[in-house]
Amino acid sequence: MYTSPISSELAGQKVIISGGGIGGAACAVAMALRGAEVELYERAAEFREVGAGIQIGPHGWRMLKQFGLEKEMVDLGFLPKRMVFKDAISTEDLLTLNFDDEFEAHYAGRYLVIHRSDLLGLLVEAAQALGAKLYNGVTVTGAENTENGAVATLEWAASDGPNTAEGDIFVAYDGIHSVHRKRFVDDVPVGSGYVAYRGTSDRSEDTEMSALEDVVGFIGPKVHFIQYPLRGGKLLNQVAVFESPRYLEGLQSDDIPEDWGNNDEFRGAFGHTNEFIQGRLDHMWLHTWWQMSDREPLMEWADGNIIVMGDAAHPPLQYLASGAVMAIEDAEALASYAADAVNSGTLVWSEVLKEVEAERGPRCARIQTTGRFWGELWHVDGLARLTRNELFRSINVTGWTKYADWLWKYDVADRHYIKNPEAGQLPKEIADWRYRVGEIAKNI
Amino acid sequence: MYTSPISSELAGQKVIISGGGIGGAACAVAMALRGAEVELYERAAEFREVGAGIQIGPHGWRMLKQFGLEKEMVDLGFLPKRMVFKDAISTEDLLTLNFDDEFEAHYAGRYLVIHRSDLLGLLVEAAQALGAKLYNGVTVTGAENTENGAVATLEWAASDGPNTAEGDIFVAYDGIHSVHRKRFVDDVPVGSGYVAYRGTSDRSEDTEMSALEDVVGFIGPKVHFIQYPLRGGKLLNQVAVFESPRYLEGLQSDDIPEDWGNNDEFRGAFGHTNEFIQGRLDHMWLHTWWQMSDREPLMEWADGNIIVMGDAAHPPLQYLASGAVMAIEDAEALASYAADAVNSGTLVWSEVLKEVEAERGPRCARIQTTGRFWGELWHVDGLARLTRNELFRSINVTGWTKYADWLWKYDVADRHYIKNPEAGQLPKEIADWRYRVGEIAKNI
Repeated sequence: MYTSPISSELAGQKVIISGGGIGGAACAVAMALRGAEVELYERAAEFREVGAGIQIGPHGWRMLKQFGLEKEMVDLGFLPKRMVFKDAISTEDLLTLNFDDEFEAHYAGRYLVIHRSDLLGLLVEAAQALGAKLYNGVTVTGAENTENGAVATLEWAASDGPNTAEGDIFVAYDGIHSVHRKRFVDDVPVGSGYVAYRGTSDRSEDTEMSALEDVVGFIGPKVHFIQYPLRGGKLLNQVAVFESPRYLEGLQSDDIPEDWGNNDEFRGAFGHTNEFIQGRLDHMWLHTWWQMSDREPLMEWADGNIIVMGDAAHPPLQYLASGAVMAIEDAEALASYAADAVNSGTLVWSEVLKEVEAERGPRCARIQTTGRFWGELWHVDGLARLTRNELFRSINVTGWTKYADWLWKYDVADRHYIKNPEAGQLPKEIADWRYRVGEIAKNI
Repeated sequence: MYTSPISSELAGQKVIISGGGIGGAACAVAMALRGAEVELYERAAEFREVGAGIQIGPHGWRMLKQFGLEKEMVDLGFLPKRMVFKDAISTEDLLTLNFDDEFEAHYAGRYLVIHRSDLLGLLVEAAQALGAKLYNGVTVTGAENTENGAVATLEWAASDGPNTAEGDIFVAYDGIHSVHRKRFVDDVPVGSGYVAYRGTSDRSEDTEMSALEDVVGFIGPKVHFIQYPLRGGKLLNQVAVFESPRYLEGLQSDDIPEDWGNNDEFRGAFGHTNEFIQGRLDHMWLHTWWQMSDREPLMEWADGNIIVMGDAAHPPLQYLASGAVMAIEDAEALASYAADAVNSGTLVWSEVLKEVEAERGPRCARIQTTGRFWGELWHVDGLARLTRNELFRSINVTGWTKYADWLWKYDVADRHYIKNPEAGQLPKEIADWRYRVGEIAKNI
């Protein structure tokens, strides 16, 4: 882990960040690594992540490695051998991605799974080691451009602190319910009707899965179920996701119940899946569940010296396992493009922020939309399911990298979408498709 | 073309056939080729086939060649270079089957398209050349087993003829509305809701398609459109098939209009397809259309010395282009199994007929059911369409023969389903699937 900047292009520049999740913390690291002064404000009383495991593809791996975290993330996480998609009814293997040497060579990175809290802890620790100042219990309620930068309005929960924080730029990483996104668009989350149950279990006690070394995804009509190890294999992470019948009924009657996806719906939603999956549901947490939603893509993120990033700009559904990685890519784009500007002669922050927006908007829009498509493909029934299964089996032969390269080979330094505006267009096949849009996700 | 039998095992045996379509005529040829005495009765005043082109895969080619008709069918028909599936919206190529030397070697046969009337004419001519007696204007209203064979009851439309015809066996090839099928099951046709328009045009006038050498199938949501040359390329054959909205509405109200699929529905049903297809619809006949239906598989065909074959036993939807070929396979099974029985020592007709039933029942059931599946796969929309398209593109790489070998490598002489009862079971994936059954096809 780095404890001093790797370069000094941003020395003397001050960055105010709202939000201390994975994205905000990564932004603190990326900026501090170039010598910037960082102040980060997090509303919660401590830095913590809700949820359990997170998957980091090679697109995230390369950046975290560049942040100096390779050894630490491997120690805390788990390197799965494969990703295996199975049919949730028959349990047969459909498609296998081998995370082998060939994979590592192709993507210049590895596939990691790690506990969200562990990853956040690493990033917070790295940011602090680099001199970033991280504050808890502070809500950033607003932000404005100033003559020479931006100023954020602060509300301190417990202690007394200053009412404002001034910097050269203000970066809002304040999540799907972002306050600062309203500067650009007056929209609401789009509910998917799907809800996730999660759970971790100690593999010394939950021995049925003691041999599991893979990320396994059972996909089936209106459900999926994911398993993978965490923390060097000591922990088993499971995610059980289903379409809530009560959500769908609520859509019809325009009265979506607050607790859609609750425990009454949970078990029955998996009644058509294999016995193995039904048995594994015993290990899920019941006290909480995640109603899943995203937002429509947003192409305008920057206003003067203020920018929204991470879930504030592009909350995705989870199917491409790229929500956190996108937030880190945003951070790396911001830091590296600013450093490039300095190296080229002049740093004009408003121009850098527009460059970030131009590069990152199309990238994130593509991930959001493809994620919707990919999720729906997991959940199809009938003839579409049989066709999907046969396609997946075929892809074992034809090769899957052509579907993944756009996602996993991406590097912000390439400015791929700035240089190739057409790359921002969705593949024709997906552009033809229409998302069976849910509705406003209420009460989440 | 043979003019005398190729063997004499069935000399002295007399076969009464009802129905002078392709199946009945093929049965006359197959039996006469083994020396049997054949009497065939056809209700219509002449031997003719409704419709236009028919596709004969290598499974049919091999038998027709064995009937001595190779040169004649090539002269009258057309040997397409490829079968190309295209998307009916984008017109992009999805899947190509090359009918090349490799194909011919793999299947020991070729892929032929021919006018139905031309094929029937060849079979009738061959049967007559072999000494079979073919009668028009005679309806077989019933049949009964006798002590030594079977007797059919005849009704002569114009001329006066005998009231009965006696033979060693009676074979009913009387089509989807078979009288004799009632001996085994009291069922009705199952409507598909799809209707076919057909048309042929002279390629010297319809020059837009003058270069076409392939069987081209445009497949799209609720429609498909097929083109191929006939008669040495002089004629162009086109088939435009769509799901009738009025049929579907009629299903809801339990009042299916007699003329579902009529001209009022025709053009609009293709409104979402490519302009090219919409333009080609100008060449379709409008005075008649075909409401398409099949029946549920039947496993009992034989009762003593009476058997139902062809569409009377197993009317399929048209998607596997195997309706006529199945009828010819039935004929070849009957003739060759009887000849085998003679060569083995004893011919007991009721046993031969049960052997035919045991072999042919599972074969035809599989074709009927797979045909329903295959047709539905052509007509899917949305995500299922995109998945199907990608699967088809993948099959260009992985190879398509694994999907076709069960259909096109089949030879009745192998007694494949008798020897491998499990082969009669549908592939698990298709067995899982449920046909979106239409309804009783009325007024057809």
